[in-house]
Amino acid sequence: MDIATIVGILLGFTVITAAIVSSGGWQIFIHLPSMAITVGGMLCATLIHFSLPQFLGIFSVIKKTIIAKIPSQSQLVQKMVNFAAVNRRDGALALEPEIRNADNLFLGKALQMLVDGQDAEQIRELMSLEIENLQDRHARGKKILEFMGAAAPAFGMIGTLIGLIQMLRSLDSPESIGSGMAVALLTTFYGALTANLIFLPLAGKLGLYSKAETTAMEMTVEGICAISRGENPTTVREKLQAFVSQGRRQEVKATI
Amino acid sequence: MDIATIVGILLGFTVITAAIVSSGGWQIFIHLPSMAITVGGMLCATLIHFSLPQFLGIFSVIKKTIIAKIPSQSQLVQKMVNFAAVNRRDGALALEPEIRNADNLFLGKALQMLVDGQDAEQIRELMSLEIENLQDRHARGKKILEFMGAAAPAFGMIGTLIGLIQMLRSLDSPESIGSGMAVALLTTFYGALTANLIFLPLAGKLGLYSKAETTAMEMTVEGICAISRGENPTTVREKLQAFVSQGRRQEVKATI
Amino acid sequence: MDIATIVGILLGFTVITAAIVSSGGWQIFIHLPSMAITVGGMLCATLIHFSLPQFLGIFSVIKKTIIAKIPSQSQLVQKMVNFAAVNRRDGALALEPEIRNADNLFLGKALQMLVDGQDAEQIRELMSLEIENLQDRHARGKKILEFMGAAAPAFGMIGTLIGLIQMLRSLDSPESIGSGMAVALLTTFYGALTANLIFLPLAGKLGLYSKAETTAMEMTVEGICAISRGENPTTVREKLQAFVSQGRRQEVKATI
Amino acid sequence: MDIATIVGILLGFTVITAAIVSSGGWQIFIHLPSMAITVGGMLCATLIHFSLPQFLGIFSVIKKTIIAKIPSQSQLVQKMVNFAAVNRRDGALALEPEIRNADNLFLGKALQMLVDGQDAEQIRELMSLEIENLQDRHARGKKILEFMGAAAPAFGMIGTLIGLIQMLRSLDSPESIGSGMAVALLTTFYGALTANLIFLPLAGKLGLYSKAETTAMEMTVEGICAISRGENPTTVREKLQAFVSQGRRQEVKATI
Amino acid sequence: MDIATIVGILLGFTVITAAIVSSGGWQIFIHLPSMAITVGGMLCATLIHFSLPQFLGIFSVIKKTIIAKIPSQSQLVQKMVNFAAVNRRDGALALEPEIRNADNLFLGKALQMLVDGQDAEQIRELMSLEIENLQDRHARGKKILEFMGAAAPAFGMIGTLIGLIQMLRSLDSPESIGSGMAVALLTTFYGALTANLIFLPLAGKLGLYSKAETTAMEMTVEGICAISRGENPTTVREKLQAFVSQGRRQEVKATI
Repeated sequence: MDIATIVGILLGFTVITAAIVSSGGWQIFIHLPSMAITVGGMLCATLIHFSLPQFLGIFSVIKKTIIAKIPSQSQLVQKMVNFAAVNRRDGALALEPEIRNADNLFLGKALQMLVDGQDAEQIRELMSLEIENLQDRHARGKKILEFMGAAAPAFGMIGTLIGLIQMLRSLDSPESIGSGMAVALLTTFYGALTANLIFLPLAGKLGLYSKAETTAMEMTVEGICAISRGENPTTVREKLQAFVSQGRRQEVKATI
Repeated sequence: MDIATIVGILLGFTVITAAIVSSGGWQIFIHLPSMAITVGGMLCATLIHFSLPQFLGIFSVIKKTIIAKIPSQSQLVQKMVNFAAVNRRDGALALEPEIRNADNLFLGKALQMLVDGQDAEQIRELMSLEIENLQDRHARGKKILEFMGAAAPAFGMIGTLIGLIQMLRSLDSPESIGSGMAVALLTTFYGALTANLIFLPLAGKLGLYSKAETTAMEMTVEGICAISRGENPTTVREKLQAFVSQGRRQEVKATI
Repeated sequence: MDIATIVGILLGFTVITAAIVSSGGWQIFIHLPSMAITVGGMLCATLIHFSLPQFLGIFSVIKKTIIAKIPSQSQLVQKMVNFAAVNRRDGALALEPEIRNADNLFLGKALQMLVDGQDAEQIRELMSLEIENLQDRHARGKKILEFMGAAAPAFGMIGTLIGLIQMLRSLDSPESIGSGMAVALLTTFYGALTANLIFLPLAGKLGLYSKAETTAMEMTVEGICAISRGENPTTVREKLQAFVSQGRRQEVKATI
Repeated sequence: MDIATIVGILLGFTVITAAIVSSGGWQIFIHLPSMAITVGGMLCATLIHFSLPQFLGIFSVIKKTIIAKIPSQSQLVQKMVNFAAVNRRDGALALEPEIRNADNLFLGKALQMLVDGQDAEQIRELMSLEIENLQDRHARGKKILEFMGAAAPAFGMIGTLIGLIQMLRSLDSPESIGSGMAVALLTTFYGALTANLIFLPLAGKLGLYSKAETTAMEMTVEGICAISRGENPTTVREKLQAFVSQGRRQEVKATI
Repeated sequence: MDIATIVGILLGFTVITAAIVSSGGWQIFIHLPSMAITVGGMLCATLIHFSLPQFLGIFSVIKKTIIAKIPSQSQLVQKMVNFAAVNRRDGALALEPEIRNADNLFLGKALQMLVDGQDAEQIRELMSLEIENLQDRHARGKKILEFMGAAAPAFGMIGTLIGLIQMLRSLDSPESIGSGMAVALLTTFYGALTANLIFLPLAGKLGLYSKAETTAMEMTVEGICAISRGENPTTVREKLQAFVSQGRRQEVKATI
């Protein structure tokens, strides 16, 4: 679970709320019709842009950005080094029990192909296709959040235009100009706030997870292919360490 | 048919209309000259940008975003697995009746090449050219909608500039300032609304369909090529499953 | 000649003019100093950005977007099929008279290489270089129009800033505020109108022509290469049809 | 020397100055503190973004956009054709005197390799590396000008915000509102003018020169490689003509 | 250490401060609640977008842009030429002591592979992976700064909207309009200033360092690979000089 996401959202709303409340008159910032235009318009545009299952999947996408776990690269390197040692000592078949212990389906499938005796090229080809298609599916979740981040300010502006037009229509009652414009600006405020504090940063975090997961998969493929070519644990470690930033490289031992 | 597109558009206009009507004075939002500037200007710019046949094809493009059907990936995998089984048991010629049953011309053409005994490389080369050129044609439809989504706010702004200049010219009659500005802002409102609730989301949906259709075509090519190399149904299934998200993979059986 | 370009421009200006005239006071929209700033500034920036020959070539570029003819793909496929038939029956030398009849230099050059007995690889290499360099030259014309489409609103804004500063300087005569701001906004209006109704759509159309011409050239190269490998008319037709949208494929016969 | 750059800049400032002077009150447009904010802020941001040597190289970059000479393609083709003829007649060694006569170091280096008897592949590999690294160095100059073109309006806006805040602070003296806002808008005017009339068009011209120089280098490499393979002058001419636009191709003779 | 970064930041703030102080009333520009909204909101959005370790690494990223040292290309070329001479004279093993003297881990690792007798292809493959992954890690630091540069003006605008809405709500006390708007504009000012004077230029400088470091690494790989193929010092120098701008090439001698 990534504490930064939750802390960021809570802290962000606290800062904004404190700024509003400290100057008094916070009631004017709660205006349901304005929220309806901004959020409703944005959701409808999202519904038109994406398909119904994708739209309904927004919440699981958002949940993912909060609870997903970035896999540890050092542990993955260590695991690959261990597999390489087992493979050199006892042959690929000795890795069969590891298939069941695999953390994720991807590693399991790669190990299965290794145990089945497929060669490095076959493993790389199939697993690369798998990575590519996973990236496609990930990119779509990010796209939904980015579209919402673009649609929210747009419908905020549409709401402000509606409010301004209605306010200007009845300009003969000058005492209502101020409150009319204040209400008109609310939708722009809602749109800018949700886009910049929720949708766009969440889209960024989703991209981060996708990148981390893809890197872990690429390391898995590199590792399994090296093992299937019978390379020794030290070479496997050298190769996979290239993916790891230098500060963390010392943690992995070449033997088990 | 994709219900999300229609629901989104209807719901979106309902939300905006409700917001307008609830504050009274909705009559000011219906102003034919303002509509003429925004929509007319946008259509003229589109006419200049694209050719006449492409311009006249806008409606069929929009219709496509509403009624197009995203093909089922599981069914496609199942079909390919079945073809592979038939091919292994009875040879490629036994697949001839399937050419007539093919859902689409693309699958039919690929099957025809398979039955004609062309090898995997020839099939892939010709079908890839076909996919590439289809993507080109699809991309153009998306581009038209995106251009309309960019031109509508631009001509909305041009209309507002015209209204503002005319209003400022006769500033000596201050009672007309309010209504003058209200009318001037209407074109910006029309432009922002049509762009954000219609053109841009529809362009997005068109891109989605194009992607889904292309993926189905790529799966078809992968499958037919694997079959033409005489691979067994299980291998064909493994390969095509890489395109499918993990939740849906269980549905396909490797035998028929 | 593409009627859409001319119709679009005429219709667009008619719509805008009608909107201006119908509200009275159109005289204010004709203001020569404002035009001088917007158009003059834009032309100077274009002169700095591009070289003198390119700048002087703007009119021939604009003329091209109006009178250029998108070549018919079906006719090109038919022609290639005919060439393939002649080549199979009488050999490449029998195609010599076609060199003089070629619609364009590109087809002529490709045919010449075919008749000279150069192999498919040599033809493809040289003609691809030709296509690539033509695309470069085309892209420059599009870039000029796009730059003008970006510079016009920028100098419109600069003109408005000049007008606003002069108006604000003499704010002590309040009766002139309105007309001062009206005149100040004119340059923004000119810039937005010329960019959105002329430069940007014309740049788009130029891109369209460039794409169509490039596709025709690629079809020519594919066709001539296939012929030089002695492929039969039916295969040539199959290959080139992949470039054509499905609705238009029936028109070509495989024999002559 | 490219006259267009100088003419464009002089003419552009003449147009803007005429527009300002003709309406009277040009004195307000000369305001040193506003210039200091816009230009000073932009230069500081550029200093932070780039390294000191790059920053100090701005003037030589600007000078280059004014005095650089786009090399003549026809002359280059003619030169290569002559080299090919000499090479065929007297062998590569006969080209040795040309190394000293070479217009630029690049051609000299390529000729040296040719005379040294290196084969086409070696020449292409080394010279391509040279082209690639030159493009990198060129791109940096363009980037500096583009960054200045983006920073100038940004610091113009910052200056306007400072002016507006100070003007609004003392709103109790209404007679100063007009002149306060006029001064505040000056920085935005300076930023927009310098960006659109100087930095952005100059960046464009630099890109143009870079492209022309790169094309000349690619033609040189193509030519020298063809010569080193002993191709005849006519073939060399055919190959290089593909880089030249059709209107200028007639000027080159295949023999000397 | 890059003096330009520090000088630029100090000078930039001096210019802005001077502009503010010279017009009097600088007190209004120091407003803690406005700073809290702009900076706090931006930090929270950054926290949501990136992971906690990346967020905490911002300061070391900023420190890096100030103290990092762009490696000297001439020295690197000289070093490679020396290595090539040693390798030709005494064999690769004689380079073993240089591993310990290497300035950075990258050069050390490449030398180690050379001494171990690995061939050019293996060295290139592993070191390229290393470069690629380093670029990924560098790009992330740049992305954080760019995101902060985009989020600061966004939260500036959100703060201004809050201020405007509160000011408009109490429009009945007209004497407070001016100061209310002045305070409202402050957040926009803070956002624009920090983005354009700190975050965006620093992101640019980071990109510059990353590019310089990557180029040095590529030169190292080219050099070590050439050495491992036993090329002579002159050829190694020729190859690496292509990376160096022409003005600095004379400094390297081909012999030691």
